[in-house]
Amino acid sequence: MAGDQVSNKQVILRDFVEGFPKESDMYIATGTVRLDVPEGSTAVLVKNLYLSCDPYMRNRMSNLVGSYIESFKPGSPISGYGVCKVIDSGHPKFKKGDLVWGMTGWEEYSLITAPETLFKIEHTDVPLSYYTGLLGMAGMTAYAGFFKVCFPKKGETVFISAASGAVGQLVGQFAKLTGCYVIGSAGSKEKVDLLKNKFKFDDAFNYKEEPDLNAALKRYFPDGIDIYFENVGGKMLDAVLLNMKVHGRIAACGMISQYNLKQHEAVHNLIQIVVKQIRMEGFIVFGYYSQYPEYLEMVLPQIREGKIAYVEDISEGLESGPAALIGLFSGKNIGKQVVAVARE
Amino acid sequence: MAGDQVSNKQVILRDFVEGFPKESDMYIATGTVRLDVPEGSTAVLVKNLYLSCDPYMRNRMSNLVGSYIESFKPGSPISGYGVCKVIDSGHPKFKKGDLVWGMTGWEEYSLITAPETLFKIEHTDVPLSYYTGLLGMAGMTAYAGFFKVCFPKKGETVFISAASGAVGQLVGQFAKLTGCYVIGSAGSKEKVDLLKNKFKFDDAFNYKEEPDLNAALKRYFPDGIDIYFENVGGKMLDAVLLNMKVHGRIAACGMISQYNLKQHEAVHNLIQIVVKQIRMEGFIVFGYYSQYPEYLEMVLPQIREGKIAYVEDISEGLESGPAALIGLFSGKNIGKQVVAVARE
Repeated sequence: MAGDQVSNKQVILRDFVEGFPKESDMYIATGTVRLDVPEGSTAVLVKNLYLSCDPYMRNRMSNLVGSYIESFKPGSPISGYGVCKVIDSGHPKFKKGDLVWGMTGWEEYSLITAPETLFKIEHTDVPLSYYTGLLGMAGMTAYAGFFKVCFPKKGETVFISAASGAVGQLVGQFAKLTGCYVIGSAGSKEKVDLLKNKFKFDDAFNYKEEPDLNAALKRYFPDGIDIYFENVGGKMLDAVLLNMKVHGRIAACGMISQYNLKQHEAVHNLIQIVVKQIRMEGFIVFGYYSQYPEYLEMVLPQIREGKIAYVEDISEGLESGPAALIGLFSGKNIGKQVVAVARE
Repeated sequence: MAGDQVSNKQVILRDFVEGFPKESDMYIATGTVRLDVPEGSTAVLVKNLYLSCDPYMRNRMSNLVGSYIESFKPGSPISGYGVCKVIDSGHPKFKKGDLVWGMTGWEEYSLITAPETLFKIEHTDVPLSYYTGLLGMAGMTAYAGFFKVCFPKKGETVFISAASGAVGQLVGQFAKLTGCYVIGSAGSKEKVDLLKNKFKFDDAFNYKEEPDLNAALKRYFPDGIDIYFENVGGKMLDAVLLNMKVHGRIAACGMISQYNLKQHEAVHNLIQIVVKQIRMEGFIVFGYYSQYPEYLEMVLPQIREGKIAYVEDISEGLESGPAALIGLFSGKNIGKQVVAVARE
């Protein structure tokens, strides 16, 4: 079948997005693709199996200047992390049949011209889709942000916002395994139940039902917060600052509540950073991928022993991609949002 | 003279202050004091020579709860850093005639009941008043904040707000000695001239004459800021965040623009902390005093060789204390504000 020309469905960005993205900001088109890599190229041609929906993708829908990542190109397929099967390879590191994860296109088949960025999947006794999250970017983000930015100690108190998301649910479980006291916030009863019952957080609350976030945090952390894993920004950060302990640490992983706002929400309580000698550190997972083997070594046994719970929200078919991605920003997904393009 | 009862002028806080403090929030009273320490006590009785006016003292004028430092007590003399001469001592570490610096009262004579917190002054070939700033708390603050929080490298770009203040002027000079490119902001032409001509900053600007702080910073730092030494907070911090480089560091030393505001100014651009992987760290000098000998070893030769310029604004007499302290918050002082209580 290599060398054949086949049809290739794609998710195309219509134009740069301002404000809250809509499903109609993307459309499905069908092109064609040859199932081999060009003669002499070191590219690989992959079949996309699972695509990952991640909050940072919102940024790429805008016309970014001087960002750490490139904008999507209007009229072209969007891209993101995915799990793929190699169909043809011009690169010595990859051969036909290899399973990989990394940056790929939102389409059925992708020609990846910088295959050095792909990770080969060596362990297939766990669900392949996990490599879009738990065993991929989200997992490394949780690992790096919690252990390498926050330096947690047993007995410390940890608060996680957007805690049922792909990263938050893992941070919470890593924190429990470290011996920390862990509270998460999320935006629905269902998610709160998940945090308490499935992910075994010490407690969790629905921030939409708390008229006074400061009071809520005081209730859950009467002695204050040592570590805040920041996924949302804005009002929640402001309330957290009032409740941090001296020498507290804030890992700023994302600020999803702010991505769609033209004028970002105000934060008024930064003086707490001085008064309490707080360290707040933004981090991006790219700088930590060299530690991926170390992460796998820690997490694979825990997955196999059932010590890590992981919830995925899998939507079927590439056509469902735009809705799945948009749903992320209104908190529609329960657990890690994945798009299944093909099962093999 | 020890054992005699003498009169003791004091600066008394009338009541807790809300909003901008006024001279009339303090008053001068005259009590009496015995010039010896009580039998069996380990206290020391000192004569206060120079008192230091520092921004953090504003916080102590309010009724603080759960702060890193205690409130002043209405009806009692305020306290702060000062240079003192030991008149009588019940503590084995100190003897009559010793010169010391540390926390003392705003009065002519103070009985210091925790003399372990005092530093003995060993080097008197430099002006004694320097131990209220350059060789005291402000100097240690600049040293710790710049070197131990920011980890500067030669060639990096450094921005300092409130740069002509006691701490800012030193950070700028330490940065120049490290081989950094240094810009400072201040609130008057006179202060800007001082930064450029006296402290040898690469450049400086008057923030009050810049309608668009973001544009001003872009002009001075076309390639961005590696290190921001934060003394003011609010609008300046918001503009700085837009101009930080990737992996930039912000040492949050104080936020003087915010101390007198009931509702702190909004900061909208914290998303930059994530996007640019910025580390923002609040610090308080108390945790670094163990490194004071190391600091003296670095800075004393530089002072003797004339490599460090230092400007003091000395007001004469304890009675001038309230005005000098209040002036700090409207930026009246040029350089380090000191109150000379007695010359010897």
